[in-house]
Amino acid sequence: MAVGPETVSPVVYPVGGVRIGVAEAGIRKKNRRDIVVFELAAGTAVAATFTKNQFCAAPVHVAKAHLQASPARYWLINTGCANAGTGDPGMQDALASCAALANLAGVPAQQVLPFSTGVIGERLPVDRLVAGLPAALAALRADAWADAAHGIMTTDTRPKLFSTRVDIDGVAVTITGISKGAGMICPNMATMLSYVCTDARIAAENLQAWLSASVAQSFNRITIDGDTSTNDACVLAATGASGVSIAARGPQADAFRAALDDIMRKLAQAIVRDGEGATKFVSIDVGGGRNSEECLAVAYTIAHSPLVKTALFASDPNWGRILACVGRAGLDALDVAKVDIFLGDVCIVKNGGVSPDYTEAQGAAVMQQEDITIRVELARGAARDRVYTTDLSFDYVKINAEYRT
Amino acid sequence: MAVGPETVSPVVYPVGGVRIGVAEAGIRKKNRRDIVVFELAAGTAVAATFTKNQFCAAPVHVAKAHLQASPARYWLINTGCANAGTGDPGMQDALASCAALANLAGVPAQQVLPFSTGVIGERLPVDRLVAGLPAALAALRADAWADAAHGIMTTDTRPKLFSTRVDIDGVAVTITGISKGAGMICPNMATMLSYVCTDARIAAENLQAWLSASVAQSFNRITIDGDTSTNDACVLAATGASGVSIAARGPQADAFRAALDDIMRKLAQAIVRDGEGATKFVSIDVGGGRNSEECLAVAYTIAHSPLVKTALFASDPNWGRILACVGRAGLDALDVAKVDIFLGDVCIVKNGGVSPDYTEAQGAAVMQQEDITIRVELARGAARDRVYTTDLSFDYVKINAEYRT
Repeated sequence: MAVGPETVSPVVYPVGGVRIGVAEAGIRKKNRRDIVVFELAAGTAVAATFTKNQFCAAPVHVAKAHLQASPARYWLINTGCANAGTGDPGMQDALASCAALANLAGVPAQQVLPFSTGVIGERLPVDRLVAGLPAALAALRADAWADAAHGIMTTDTRPKLFSTRVDIDGVAVTITGISKGAGMICPNMATMLSYVCTDARIAAENLQAWLSASVAQSFNRITIDGDTSTNDACVLAATGASGVSIAARGPQADAFRAALDDIMRKLAQAIVRDGEGATKFVSIDVGGGRNSEECLAVAYTIAHSPLVKTALFASDPNWGRILACVGRAGLDALDVAKVDIFLGDVCIVKNGGVSPDYTEAQGAAVMQQEDITIRVELARGAARDRVYTTDLSFDYVKINAEYRT
Repeated sequence: MAVGPETVSPVVYPVGGVRIGVAEAGIRKKNRRDIVVFELAAGTAVAATFTKNQFCAAPVHVAKAHLQASPARYWLINTGCANAGTGDPGMQDALASCAALANLAGVPAQQVLPFSTGVIGERLPVDRLVAGLPAALAALRADAWADAAHGIMTTDTRPKLFSTRVDIDGVAVTITGISKGAGMICPNMATMLSYVCTDARIAAENLQAWLSASVAQSFNRITIDGDTSTNDACVLAATGASGVSIAARGPQADAFRAALDDIMRKLAQAIVRDGEGATKFVSIDVGGGRNSEECLAVAYTIAHSPLVKTALFASDPNWGRILACVGRAGLDALDVAKVDIFLGDVCIVKNGGVSPDYTEAQGAAVMQQEDITIRVELARGAARDRVYTTDLSFDYVKINAEYRT
């Protein structure tokens, strides 16, 4: 089950300086592409953001350390095992995987970044992973993005792949990226991973700043179930192969960052559209807050409410559940008599009570749609922010109750 | 569906100075007892705690104001309509209900406390409620506690009624109470209400302090779905009819408070056992924290995780989901390498990784049980706290997706 339009760009542009190899290593299941290797040209700048979960997985620790020590030349991604909650042996497994790839590729081990997604608490089968590496390296090619998008899927039902070109001083600069996850932040199969590459040349510090800003409005604005994973990672590489350099500021940076933000938002929203058991794609837009934090507090309270999510699943305009979320979001001295709530364009709550013009039929018509916007106006400031989420369905329970059996 | 032992004491003691009348007013459905009136003897002390939801319902506003102005003589409870999100007309409806009962009973309107539970956002049918009051008053009697426990039920599948006697200087002092709610804190049918009475004589200020302390370790330690209701209320009355006065401190106070805490904990846990769709009763016990707040942060993160709750439903010892909750609970500078996690008596995580002795069969055996304890040891302080919750089942989704249709 997935909501709304396909999550793959009709045209996918390879990125100069990036080759991708996909292989079957039998990490958890046979006959399944479960390792993906990215090869980056020498001189590529790499930026990354990682999960804030304090129980972060061994590969997250290793990737952070390697990225600080050396420019990355290879990304090694496996599905089927998260290598999380595995203690010191898990660290050794992650390091051994990097060393094996580095040895085959002829680079220092610190130039390999490892990423894992799958079951928590099981040891990574390093022997099988290493045995699969020659096939992945032999398969390296520039136009394997679609294979990569499939190769990192776990409970995902659809690949997530977006690609665009942006004109910088007459040269077409490419941005192409993939993501996976069916709970964005969910500590099991559905850990969130995303890999985005561009052929622009961008200084590493600018690349990191732009990635962090872009993640803040894309991956950090989605939630399926509120369960922050141990393995989340989003990585951005700039190879420079287009010959176009982009400075920290100016119209080139503006154009590039707008295109990057668009790709990132699409990759993030594609994860929500493929959320476990999702039948609805829900935007929660909160305005009139004193600051972004309180807009997000209200938005996430609504997005995480099992009662709002089951009402969305039932297409039931049960706005009392939304109103109760606004009331318990922890806002200081909220004047509830000023709060308005909209379902799509329909005003359901006006000045803290049911809108005089509201009819149940109006609300029901909005709730029947696949894409729904819930808008809350707090009327106490100028801030506005938005998060994206799904409903809570029978299939969500089924997928997560049955997932290891 | 409900978990574990029955939630009614085998012997129910009436409370001197308290009479109860139950009637059918057809508030939402026909042939259903939906109004309950408590009559308290003159001189009764009353204490109460109410929801912290800022969108609290009209009857909550009125009950708070009346309680401040005057000692309460009557409690008027209706099911079928929460009278929440109803603005100023809702306030008028609550006041009119109190006035009607006061007029029939011959007391000032401020001596009536109103309580409502049911759908949010619909007007209270005051005419029908008022028409039912004479029958409720005619039915007033001391031994109607079981009728009252039924009369306040909504999506509850079982009444919740506990009664005890405590010996104070050779006199048997009675404490009897009822509660309702199938999501403790859930802004729809399942709002939480509890009414407890004793025939001890206790000064109002002590009664309020003891109630607040008791609520903190009972009703404020349970969660079904994290959705704080607009209508939660817990009320405690002390009539003094036993002739026994209990001072603020001393062995009498200790004995009484221990009995009160026990009744309150049983009433609170009975709500969890009857949680919507519940198949498991889960205690989450977090020790070794720097303070109670951080123990509760970890406990509630686990208790609200849809992934932990679906694993509990599946009897799946998927401890990685618990570990990930500990990691995202927001504790400052948590040393994950010191964290231990237990399922029942089985150590599953030792020093941040899977315990060397742990086998899946051990975990599975614990998860098969109806009553399960998850214990987390943080090893950074001496604080300990505990919350109670349920699993997340197909029936939870069914109940809440189908509830207004």
